[in-house]
Amino acid sequence: MAKELKGLTKRSVSYSQWYNELVVKADLAEQSDVRGCMVIKPYGYAIWEKIQQTLDAKFKETGVQNVYFPMLIPKSYLSKEADHVEGFAKECAVVTHYRLKSNPDGDGVVVDPAAKLEEELIIRPTSETTIWSTYKKWIQSWRDLPLLCNQWCNVMRWEMRTRLFLRTSEFLWQEGHTAHATREEAEERAKQMVHVYADFVRDYMAIPLVVGVKSATERFAGALDTYTIEAMMQDGKALQSGTSHFLGQNFGKAFDVQFVDKDNKQQYAWATSWGVSTRLMGALIMTHSDDNGLVLPPALAPIQVVIVPIYKGQEELEKLNEKLQPLAEKLRKRGISVKYDNSDTKRPGFKFADYELKGVPVRLVMGGRDLENGTIEVMRRDTLEKHTTMFDQIDNEVPALLDAIQENIYSKAKTFLDEHTYECNNYDEFKERVKEGGFFLCPWDGTAETEAKIKEDTQATIRCIPFDVEQDNPGIDMVSGKPAICRAIIARSY
Amino acid sequence: MAKELKGLTKRSVSYSQWYNELVVKADLAEQSDVRGCMVIKPYGYAIWEKIQQTLDAKFKETGVQNVYFPMLIPKSYLSKEADHVEGFAKECAVVTHYRLKSNPDGDGVVVDPAAKLEEELIIRPTSETTIWSTYKKWIQSWRDLPLLCNQWCNVMRWEMRTRLFLRTSEFLWQEGHTAHATREEAEERAKQMVHVYADFVRDYMAIPLVVGVKSATERFAGALDTYTIEAMMQDGKALQSGTSHFLGQNFGKAFDVQFVDKDNKQQYAWATSWGVSTRLMGALIMTHSDDNGLVLPPALAPIQVVIVPIYKGQEELEKLNEKLQPLAEKLRKRGISVKYDNSDTKRPGFKFADYELKGVPVRLVMGGRDLENGTIEVMRRDTLEKHTTMFDQIDNEVPALLDAIQENIYSKAKTFLDEHTYECNNYDEFKERVKEGGFFLCPWDGTAETEAKIKEDTQATIRCIPFDVEQDNPGIDMVSGKPAICRAIIARSY
Repeated sequence: MAKELKGLTKRSVSYSQWYNELVVKADLAEQSDVRGCMVIKPYGYAIWEKIQQTLDAKFKETGVQNVYFPMLIPKSYLSKEADHVEGFAKECAVVTHYRLKSNPDGDGVVVDPAAKLEEELIIRPTSETTIWSTYKKWIQSWRDLPLLCNQWCNVMRWEMRTRLFLRTSEFLWQEGHTAHATREEAEERAKQMVHVYADFVRDYMAIPLVVGVKSATERFAGALDTYTIEAMMQDGKALQSGTSHFLGQNFGKAFDVQFVDKDNKQQYAWATSWGVSTRLMGALIMTHSDDNGLVLPPALAPIQVVIVPIYKGQEELEKLNEKLQPLAEKLRKRGISVKYDNSDTKRPGFKFADYELKGVPVRLVMGGRDLENGTIEVMRRDTLEKHTTMFDQIDNEVPALLDAIQENIYSKAKTFLDEHTYECNNYDEFKERVKEGGFFLCPWDGTAETEAKIKEDTQATIRCIPFDVEQDNPGIDMVSGKPAICRAIIARSY
Repeated sequence: MAKELKGLTKRSVSYSQWYNELVVKADLAEQSDVRGCMVIKPYGYAIWEKIQQTLDAKFKETGVQNVYFPMLIPKSYLSKEADHVEGFAKECAVVTHYRLKSNPDGDGVVVDPAAKLEEELIIRPTSETTIWSTYKKWIQSWRDLPLLCNQWCNVMRWEMRTRLFLRTSEFLWQEGHTAHATREEAEERAKQMVHVYADFVRDYMAIPLVVGVKSATERFAGALDTYTIEAMMQDGKALQSGTSHFLGQNFGKAFDVQFVDKDNKQQYAWATSWGVSTRLMGALIMTHSDDNGLVLPPALAPIQVVIVPIYKGQEELEKLNEKLQPLAEKLRKRGISVKYDNSDTKRPGFKFADYELKGVPVRLVMGGRDLENGTIEVMRRDTLEKHTTMFDQIDNEVPALLDAIQENIYSKAKTFLDEHTYECNNYDEFKERVKEGGFFLCPWDGTAETEAKIKEDTQATIRCIPFDVEQDNPGIDMVSGKPAICRAIIARSY
């Protein structure tokens, strides 16, 4: 896979172009021949696998079980929940036929008109409808509840403007769907899952977040409440990185899922759903990376340490191999993923640039002089700082260094978030400053009209009403001048 | 999820009905509302996850990396390889539109005729075409080879007659796609992967196999050779359980994937592809299970040991909890997955039947008398044998018992396979006996005509030319009377 290492556009020139180039040059993903759908390459997929494995274990700790539901949904199912169909009908890929045949007029194949489906099927944009039509069969009594299912799968939402990882027509995700006997339990679960996401994103992806609840306008189609984690990219824009929905009894009623409660009464089941997608890859790339390429948190880096020998001639290489191969093994025994790159098809300078581009957190380099001195050079990707240390110490030093990098990139991002989060009570000031990016904590009167006006004037939207902000005496709405009901985070977003 | 424990049809009455009922009653899977597509339930999916994880690690040991390619394929791609389109065109789900809109004449939504795609897209039945159109961008030089990619995903082949796990329109699978610089290396890889499958199926699924190469008629559409693993079900029919294809340069040429070799010459890349699917679940269920329900190999059982206390009153339960909860922990520390079921909503008899139905390999039961005597009752699912042992010994006994069960169900299946594999040189005898099932090792003249006649007369097909059978002097073809070129396994199949 030949690639051009040079020429990554600087963030200061174009943050957007920098991102698009970086995704491709770092071998994470590329556009496919099908509009809006991406190919996730091995290096990108290795990161996604680590995200999956970690999250999957966390879901299971809370009692969730994995399942698989069909990717095709009868068109009529979508209409059963009024808001839901409104939200998704405009971006559905529709299957209308089930057979091709040889082209009677020439080459290739054509759709066989005799193989038309009686009812069209859509490729799932999300699976509430198909899952709740099945839950009706699984739920009869309070003893069948809670039902806690999740699936890892692909979904399709036909997007007109796409960007790798951030917005693609097909994407990979997990979607959890739970059913409960009481409103309280369902609300509790929806909140629990947004916190599972927040903890994971903070602890593994090293991304600081604002966690809160969406305004009615920004809710998931069919939800009573949507909880969200909002991250800030380096251009100050928000990236919604995961959502968890309290769906009330909307789907229980739409699909007639009733159960007998402990008092022997028929009740509709209460629902939640929650998901994160390959969009998280976009958040990861955009939050930490720099003009040299990716910066990956050690907790998710497919290669945590790369070791490169620098040698003149076969004899020196063999001496270095004797030292460095056992070192690689020692580090692996500590659970660290190590690549020992002594290949002779690429020069060291090329290797250095490539591993920088790919965001490998730690690089160890040993040459002839190091052999003599019993030393090794250590570089950390986050700061690009180099130092030389005693070879005998290095296997003790590396684990601590990986921890330090994980912490450092988190606190760097946290400082950025804090420094670009502003309290603002004046609409003129807001309109001026929001162009530069950042999160604005503003008093809001709770109306959709105010929200719409802000969006029209500035493209900014209410990202959420944050959980951890004092909401007593929210003040006066900066747009309407009416009493505010809360303070909300407003920002431009991806 | 209420269910009827009783009434599993006996295998002797109808093997086919027994299977259909078992899949549903054991909570593995069920039909969805979309014709031919299944819902994989938590217990079934937990088994599939174990299959996935184990195989995935084995692929990676051979240098394979995971990737993800789009599920939609431009219709024209299919036509680029002549045999391939012939094989798959008749079972393609076709996406023709990308939007729904409100029904102008009434309720619900209709396909928006304005949102018709210029070129129809098909849902992947397999991904050779989309992957090789991308490999063209990734492969320029011999240094880019071999390229060893795999993806875990869903695929769609529109089937008219479906059965849960065995043949469904949508199924889950992995598909490996490799590109090589030489014919030898590609052939080697195709054989290597069929052996990875065979080892896994034997060692983890406890299923004995015949491994060999397919006849030209039975090859994958576009392959030069297809290697296969064939298992024998309890009705003597074959189940093709995994295949690995040597694709020659067919896809390299169809998608113009050329590279510069070490002698600086342009060459077309050589290809393999290989896959196993949720069909393996069908093989697992049908090979080992009995009239009481599932029998699962310990290596893949989601619950390996279930512990059930039998108690009168809360006080006795607490005494049993004191003994049994630490036992569960002890076993878990040995890496065994244990369920401690002290729930009071179901009677012990119900629990026993349910865990038998679900194929939990080992059941431990302790009651009041056991408490007094310091004993515990052990039942193994494969033989249904019970014995009582000293409580203090049980945590040492269980691991050995699990190994013994794994071995026993394999050798039981191996004996069955051996006893139902026959050498046969007489066509009249063959025609008579093949009705009863079994694998027939017969001399074959290598012609498609003979193959077609056998199929027409008996519905049986050449499953493979086995690797481990002496092929010198294969004898005389039993149908044509011409000299045979090999001896092949012929059988009826799923």
